Amino acid sequence: MFDHAKTFERAQAACASRECWSPFPEMPKLYPDADIAAPAGLAAFEALLGQPFALDLPGVTGWVGEEISPYTQAPLGITYPQADPDTLFAAAKAAIPSWAAADIDTRLMLLMEGLDRLYRDHLFTLVNAVMHTAGQSYNMAYAGSGVNALDRGIEALVYAEQAMRAVAPSARWARRFGPSEIALEKTYRLIPRGVAVCFTCASFATWNAWPSMLASLATGNAVILKPHPASVLPMALTVRVFRALLAEQGFDPNLVTLCLDTVAAPLGKVLIKHPACAIVDFTGSARFGHWVEANAHPALAFTETSGCNTVVLAGAEDLDAAIRALATTMCMFSAQMCTSPQNVYLPPVIDTPAGPVPRDVVAQKLADAIAALTQDPRKASMILATVQAEPTLGLIGWVREQAQSRGRVLLDSRAYPHLDFPKARTATPLLVQLGKDARDLYAEERFGPIGFVIDCDSAEDALAQATTDARNNGGITGFLYARDEAFITRAEDAYAQAGAQLTINLTGAMPLNFAAAYSDYHVTGLNGAGNATLTTLGFVAPRFAVTQSRRPVRNDA
Amino acid sequence: MFDHAKTFERAQAACASRECWSPFPEMPKLYPDADIAAPAGLAAFEALLGQPFALDLPGVTGWVGEEISPYTQAPLGITYPQADPDTLFAAAKAAIPSWAAADIDTRLMLLMEGLDRLYRDHLFTLVNAVMHTAGQSYNMAYAGSGVNALDRGIEALVYAEQAMRAVAPSARWARRFGPSEIALEKTYRLIPRGVAVCFTCASFATWNAWPSMLASLATGNAVILKPHPASVLPMALTVRVFRALLAEQGFDPNLVTLCLDTVAAPLGKVLIKHPACAIVDFTGSARFGHWVEANAHPALAFTETSGCNTVVLAGAEDLDAAIRALATTMCMFSAQMCTSPQNVYLPPVIDTPAGPVPRDVVAQKLADAIAALTQDPRKASMILATVQAEPTLGLIGWVREQAQSRGRVLLDSRAYPHLDFPKARTATPLLVQLGKDARDLYAEERFGPIGFVIDCDSAEDALAQATTDARNNGGITGFLYARDEAFITRAEDAYAQAGAQLTINLTGAMPLNFAAAYSDYHVTGLNGAGNATLTTLGFVAPRFAVTQSRRPVRNDA
Repeated sequence: MFDHAKTFERAQAACASRECWSPFPEMPKLYPDADIAAPAGLAAFEALLGQPFALDLPGVTGWVGEEISPYTQAPLGITYPQADPDTLFAAAKAAIPSWAAADIDTRLMLLMEGLDRLYRDHLFTLVNAVMHTAGQSYNMAYAGSGVNALDRGIEALVYAEQAMRAVAPSARWARRFGPSEIALEKTYRLIPRGVAVCFTCASFATWNAWPSMLASLATGNAVILKPHPASVLPMALTVRVFRALLAEQGFDPNLVTLCLDTVAAPLGKVLIKHPACAIVDFTGSARFGHWVEANAHPALAFTETSGCNTVVLAGAEDLDAAIRALATTMCMFSAQMCTSPQNVYLPPVIDTPAGPVPRDVVAQKLADAIAALTQDPRKASMILATVQAEPTLGLIGWVREQAQSRGRVLLDSRAYPHLDFPKARTATPLLVQLGKDARDLYAEERFGPIGFVIDCDSAEDALAQATTDARNNGGITGFLYARDEAFITRAEDAYAQAGAQLTINLTGAMPLNFAAAYSDYHVTGLNGAGNATLTTLGFVAPRFAVTQSRRPVRNDA
Repeated sequence: MFDHAKTFERAQAACASRECWSPFPEMPKLYPDADIAAPAGLAAFEALLGQPFALDLPGVTGWVGEEISPYTQAPLGITYPQADPDTLFAAAKAAIPSWAAADIDTRLMLLMEGLDRLYRDHLFTLVNAVMHTAGQSYNMAYAGSGVNALDRGIEALVYAEQAMRAVAPSARWARRFGPSEIALEKTYRLIPRGVAVCFTCASFATWNAWPSMLASLATGNAVILKPHPASVLPMALTVRVFRALLAEQGFDPNLVTLCLDTVAAPLGKVLIKHPACAIVDFTGSARFGHWVEANAHPALAFTETSGCNTVVLAGAEDLDAAIRALATTMCMFSAQMCTSPQNVYLPPVIDTPAGPVPRDVVAQKLADAIAALTQDPRKASMILATVQAEPTLGLIGWVREQAQSRGRVLLDSRAYPHLDFPKARTATPLLVQLGKDARDLYAEERFGPIGFVIDCDSAEDALAQATTDARNNGGITGFLYARDEAFITRAEDAYAQAGAQLTINLTGAMPLNFAAAYSDYHVTGLNGAGNATLTTLGFVAPRFAVTQSRRPVRNDA
């Protein structure tokens, strides 16, 4: 058995205290022997290009691959084995009994080893895979899609362990019934639900996939990973690592398989409605996510869809610092994170120590700050990275058009030149200003570098608008700048009721939407942005059942 | 704040060790001052008859009541206020914020007090209410519907506490981001899902209702109790006690309300599809339960429906003792418990120390044992009690008719004379013998005093038949008698996979289907008998969400 007990115990402590901790270095340059590992990862990635991906799966019926790098806008040319869903489910089902029979520690330590191998042996391959599928920057691919995603995986194991340990493995029970004393020995078993299907999205596959997958595996289930056809490689690498590890340790590798589909011939509903599907983890669009929630039954559904994320800027001790923080976060990965702020609700005047500042001045400051951040191509490439999907550019155009007639464009979007990848698909943020009557335009996630400034009647109105939109349209994050503590308290209540995680008066170098594993809860389940939280007991406990058998105590027992 | 901390701690320990424990005396005669309390409870019950039930509810539109005592077959004559569902939901929603804002201990100790008041002040009123609605015997109404149900309520509080305490209330978090150290104070809130609707069944209302209701309340939700129109009184008493307690303690009594409907005008689907319905707890028929599971979304659904409960009798060290135990449990409350054994799968010969015993001999022994138990009216009334619902008698007749042409009647059902209540609706068990080709007849719950002996090809076949029926048709309990340890091990595996809780080789005075709070898990969620388990973390953890807010650490904080 692998010994990751110390790391695991430390992770347990972090989940309890929710302090800052990670076993992994935060930045690529702090990775051990980064000078060797980073180029080796790049070389490993490059060696995969234009080749069939070596992955042994049951029921392969053909090879598909349609990934296009947002950095080169050229196909990666990697093809992956496409397996028949019936065969995958059958193989996954058959793999479960021996895995479920292993003791909790064996499963947990093996899964910790899998994460550790992703970290030790494949992290920079994954970094490049994420860059050239999701289009993230190198640093974000390392941090957000790399080590932080691994941390979320460990965190899921901590909660899985907690939920499983809450069930005693056995008991002695004795009671008098009338004339006779009945003494029973009881054994309790944890029975996995069955085969889980884990859907991952195009822009941030690992961060949701790893915790979902590990929560299912830790509790004894098998997992079929169903990546978005645009972002297969990070999941294919994951599947290959876990299959090899499972086989090496004497378990059936079909506990972890990959199910590919194509944009033209999606398999999502087939998988979800498959009679052997017991659990669905879904990250992706709100539309399909809501279908999953309503239709996955009898499978359990854990969803994380989209975020209509709101900012209330009522006042600030240091307005420029607040604007800078906001602008930076709105630029981060071209706002293609489900936690990216999108809607900035402004009262007529913003309260500062120097007196009230008119809304339009603040709106212009925000536009200027975004423009400043994205002017220098080198800086722009670090922060904006690329646009994952071509249709996002069309969406920007559509919103611009709408705004021209219904509001005003504060800052137009343009392609910026990426110095390392001249053909990169890029777009600086579009920032438009609208009245509340344009709710149809702004009150849902407009995925990509699109921001809205919304004119409100007062600070209270801004808060009411923002939290109403978050509650009704699924906010994951909320951001507040205010000087009035009573107002802040009301905002905390309102955001809690709206089900969005709130960040207050934060300035400085931390991205406002940074969600730390072991500390920050992600998605509340209280609004349309999804029903699952990374990570609570509710995310893991339903993945297994408890059965028992009991019999009179035997003399020899 | 009420101080039930010691009892609660003891309950926590019992849930961890799963040993035998209860703060309550097991039998009515051990109740403190039973000589006074029991007649006082009867008098209190009798004073309720023929009267409007004094219960102050919001939105009352009329008075209804159609309970008929299975003991007298006369209407109780009690009418209850019928409240408008929209008003109930609105009142329940409005009651939540201050309740959710109370700290965990305040809620838990208040709910413990509520259970304690049911025990101290109303137990014998409840006993009579259960007798004259569900039709249970006095002893069962005290034990199963009384103290054991209270225990299941405390148990739900233990798991609710565990799930809530897994979330730290606050944290300090600090990390370096490039040049700056970011230090955040974070607060985490538990946010209840909203309004829960708790459906209770006619035959065993309290045992499922109390844990469901307390799980919802403990986690900050409000509860609308929706009793079966035939068994309102136990729930009306419950609602009255909790409303008075809540009001006395400064909380809004509308946290607990009652929604009445009638058989002619059911409100179930209206409540479940109400936009404010956030949680559904359902105990009742498999048909409606499956509808709830598939249609409650976006509300959470926790269900416990019916049990196609199986017995494999392959061998016994003491065949007569096994038969006696089986016969007793098949008679208990006329098999109107969701855990009552129904189908006895017999191989051609049963293995005993004295040699193999032919199946038909064993079948006859079972029929004889049931006949013996039900011959003496005094004994019969203690064990069989009454038949809750008139249609059950029709079902007995239908099964008898089917069996006459498709198998044979081993023991016919008849009304037995109840000495205390000459007009009681009674029926001794019908026991029929069938081949496997009659699966359409026996492979589902036939609610009431109906047992099937099923001819199987071998012990292995009996096990395969039983566990297949349990898995496909929803078994809650399974019972095994066997001498071969290897066979027992295979049976434990097979029943675990089928999702039924197994009792092995149990003889003596304990009812085979006795499910002890703090020790026995009830319903696995792995087959059609329901999706919720009393009590796991999965039963409580999804009832609340976690929201957070975070901000830079303040100097004064």
